[in-house]
Amino acid sequence: MAAVQKGQEVPAVTVREGTPSCQFDLQDVTKEGTHIIVGVPGAFSPACSAGHVPGYINLFPKLKERGVKTVWVVAVNDAFVTNAWAESLDAPADDVRIISDQAGEFSLAFGTLFDASEFFGNKRSARYAAVIMDGKVVEVFEEPDKTGLDVSKAENVLKSLG
Amino acid sequence: MAAVQKGQEVPAVTVREGTPSCQFDLQDVTKEGTHIIVGVPGAFSPACSAGHVPGYINLFPKLKERGVKTVWVVAVNDAFVTNAWAESLDAPADDVRIISDQAGEFSLAFGTLFDASEFFGNKRSARYAAVIMDGKVVEVFEEPDKTGLDVSKAENVLKSLG
Repeated sequence: MAAVQKGQEVPAVTVREGTPSCQFDLQDVTKEGTHIIVGVPGAFSPACSAGHVPGYINLFPKLKERGVKTVWVVAVNDAFVTNAWAESLDAPADDVRIISDQAGEFSLAFGTLFDASEFFGNKRSARYAAVIMDGKVVEVFEEPDKTGLDVSKAENVLKSLG
Repeated sequence: MAAVQKGQEVPAVTVREGTPSCQFDLQDVTKEGTHIIVGVPGAFSPACSAGHVPGYINLFPKLKERGVKTVWVVAVNDAFVTNAWAESLDAPADDVRIISDQAGEFSLAFGTLFDASEFFGNKRSARYAAVIMDGKVVEVFEEPDKTGLDVSKAENVLKSLG
């Protein structure tokens, strides 16, 4: 099974933020310093909205003390949807950025894409958190059932940062 | 090119509303009386959110006077997203219902699915409005460019109802 691996580089894949025309490469923006990439199955879904992403928003000040520059939340939803979701979560714009991987190309390259047709109608990203240092994965917390919320919680990732 | 045709039956395809587990057949719920099915390219996209759907919400009392039971807005988005969109639009629950055609199966069967990969990452529904009487299409207003907002506006459909 494909999965995120320690030592793996962040793939050079275009993602979107805010609108479909605002595009950038997730490798470019994570190549310096410490970042966290958080994969979620679906914008506006209960576990993602009520627990997972708010955890990173609430704990961001502590993550920042440990050197984290930005948390990048990646969802296989279009940019209008991720933008509306970011607004509904009141995500702090420079700190926790909600990113559209609209066709799942980033998730495929990162090893987290799975068939979620029954629930979402298409392929989605498994739930995970990956700590990135200078463009490479140094820690990975992937939910074994792909959608549950346990090891990839913000408080667990925070602990790993010592 | 596939397109909605006068005389066509509403296809018997499962759609979702509110959550992925709330499922029903759009043919079943439109087989009696007058209904309008409105196809939109994307939940939370500007033309759909600022103009198209609010037009149906605002004009619903007049549509109801002309005998319309329900307006069914169909989007190729998952049910969590269509639910969040319905809440953000304050759509009146029994009158203008925002429906998830999560894998595009209804739109494919109805003849409105098109490749919107560049903008949305997948196939979506063209923008249209179809007046349904006793389960069959009696009028259809399909945008020629699939995404513009002109002939399928609520005020235009209202006029056609005499």
